[in-house]
Amino acid sequence: MREVLQHKIDFKTKPLGSLGKLERIAMKIGLIQNTLSPELRNPTHIVFAGDHGLADEGVSPYPKEVTFQMVMNFLNGGAAISVFCRQNAINLKVVDAGVDYIFPKEWNLIHAKIAHGTKNIIKEPAMSAELCQKAMDKGREIVNTEYYAGCNYISFGEMGIGNTSSASLIMNKLVGISIEDCTGRGTGHDDEGLKRKTAILKEASLKYNVTEPLQVLATYGGFEIAMMCGAMLQAKQNGMIIIVDGFITTSALLTAYFLDKSILDNCIFSHCSGEKGHKAMLDFLGVEALVDLHMRLGEGTGAAVIFPLIKSSVLFLNEMASFEAAGVSNKA
Amino acid sequence: MREVLQHKIDFKTKPLGSLGKLERIAMKIGLIQNTLSPELRNPTHIVFAGDHGLADEGVSPYPKEVTFQMVMNFLNGGAAISVFCRQNAINLKVVDAGVDYIFPKEWNLIHAKIAHGTKNIIKEPAMSAELCQKAMDKGREIVNTEYYAGCNYISFGEMGIGNTSSASLIMNKLVGISIEDCTGRGTGHDDEGLKRKTAILKEASLKYNVTEPLQVLATYGGFEIAMMCGAMLQAKQNGMIIIVDGFITTSALLTAYFLDKSILDNCIFSHCSGEKGHKAMLDFLGVEALVDLHMRLGEGTGAAVIFPLIKSSVLFLNEMASFEAAGVSNKA
Repeated sequence: MREVLQHKIDFKTKPLGSLGKLERIAMKIGLIQNTLSPELRNPTHIVFAGDHGLADEGVSPYPKEVTFQMVMNFLNGGAAISVFCRQNAINLKVVDAGVDYIFPKEWNLIHAKIAHGTKNIIKEPAMSAELCQKAMDKGREIVNTEYYAGCNYISFGEMGIGNTSSASLIMNKLVGISIEDCTGRGTGHDDEGLKRKTAILKEASLKYNVTEPLQVLATYGGFEIAMMCGAMLQAKQNGMIIIVDGFITTSALLTAYFLDKSILDNCIFSHCSGEKGHKAMLDFLGVEALVDLHMRLGEGTGAAVIFPLIKSSVLFLNEMASFEAAGVSNKA
Repeated sequence: MREVLQHKIDFKTKPLGSLGKLERIAMKIGLIQNTLSPELRNPTHIVFAGDHGLADEGVSPYPKEVTFQMVMNFLNGGAAISVFCRQNAINLKVVDAGVDYIFPKEWNLIHAKIAHGTKNIIKEPAMSAELCQKAMDKGREIVNTEYYAGCNYISFGEMGIGNTSSASLIMNKLVGISIEDCTGRGTGHDDEGLKRKTAILKEASLKYNVTEPLQVLATYGGFEIAMMCGAMLQAKQNGMIIIVDGFITTSALLTAYFLDKSILDNCIFSHCSGEKGHKAMLDFLGVEALVDLHMRLGEGTGAAVIFPLIKSSVLFLNEMASFEAAGVSNKA
């Protein structure tokens, strides 16, 4: 299949290789779907939201209530991810994975609350192994609902005040990179705030001697991260295209990767975040993001804005004429 | 206006500055249109096509007839630019600026042929000063037609076997960078071909002692480049958003820049080409391209694929909620 796909790509009316990254994506999607004519069906973006006990320590310059306030903003269509999904006709789903707020049942979000936020990891592990498993199972179920409704293209985002801290700690434990190199300014720490955050994360890192991916996830994760991790593993099993965006989403993928390395076959990395540590995670996985627009917003906004580029990859493969069909002379 | 725009951007529900390059584009477009609520109206992409006498010297690995064959491919909807404009609902116009082929009058292209290709610059200047002026005037007229039809957003592309050579020579003469550093593999030279091309361009560079932008354009340009240059100058006068794509298009902009430096206020640079020399031209202008997808295809394909990102910039400015409106707590 790789060979026939490459042939189809190479005989399109353009200089050899001249569509660059779009050619690599076309190849990848062709291989995922095992076809010369891939299709993106019901593209869906899922934002998982959850609160973090660690937020009590002041790891974020924003107050914790921003998590539920932003969930409301998603639902009201006023957040960046709402705007970009609407622009690109992406089906947006918002999941309460563990927000410390009671959302009315009739609201249009996926009610999957595992708990009212994680525990403060300075004091105890973020969640028990059982709750971590429950979150992952719920993530699988959510992806399957979309899959059975006809979706074959899924991207992920998150919301959770304090969750860059979880992502940094997961990275630190699974990849062995120092806390300093894993810790960034998040939503916008100044130097003083970054210093304080780094000190807290060091303490949290030293507190638990965990190495197994599921242990690390339960100890340091958030419910949104654990649920996303389960969702990604299920998407891989379903043979879906998985778009992995920023720092926190990649920490979920990193955990999934240690549970099933073949998941990378289905992943396209959309945007290299301005958040310190993301590039190092991508390097560890041996992958490159499609673009770098200096965004560091979370919500999976990078995935949403680059969706048209993924579509361009599929469309050139399906719709461009070959040299032969167009009667264009090829290279001498 | 800069200040009120910045305030509007900063109070959207996102961490400060976190939309990165999209914020810079929103600011730029707001300033061009002098409004807090910019609009992209009738986005139009114009591909100028022309033949080059220098192609006889073998500066391209593709035969000269590919220029008219590709024009047909554009019109038939099978070229990359056709696919991407269709995808993104961009109005595509194809201009015969100087193709060495007689297109039937009834074909759906803009018939603006100045001559059947330029002269071979190894022997004589590409075109006279009169024909250069005629091409530029025609470019202005073409842009005005779109402008008066309601278009305020215009991007440019080109087709012409041999035209990376023209672009390299224009760059060499206007910026003073050596031929070696201006000359790349074009549509796909091997080492031997690149060596031959470089030698030919050195000879052409030494042959004429020209420094004035219009002289350089007439001596080394193509009709598609001269027409694009006039088109860009007119677009600036009209206050339109100008999207500048790859290597050849940027050589037209470079010439326009020496005639009216304020043109940069209206330009957004879409894609940094894989063609050697493009980065150096962008650096000279002190600008940065929005993305680098390793494309080097011409036709303005980079401009067409990134159009949705420009749209995202405008949409976040117009549609995202502010902290206040959404009831989201801002940074402490």
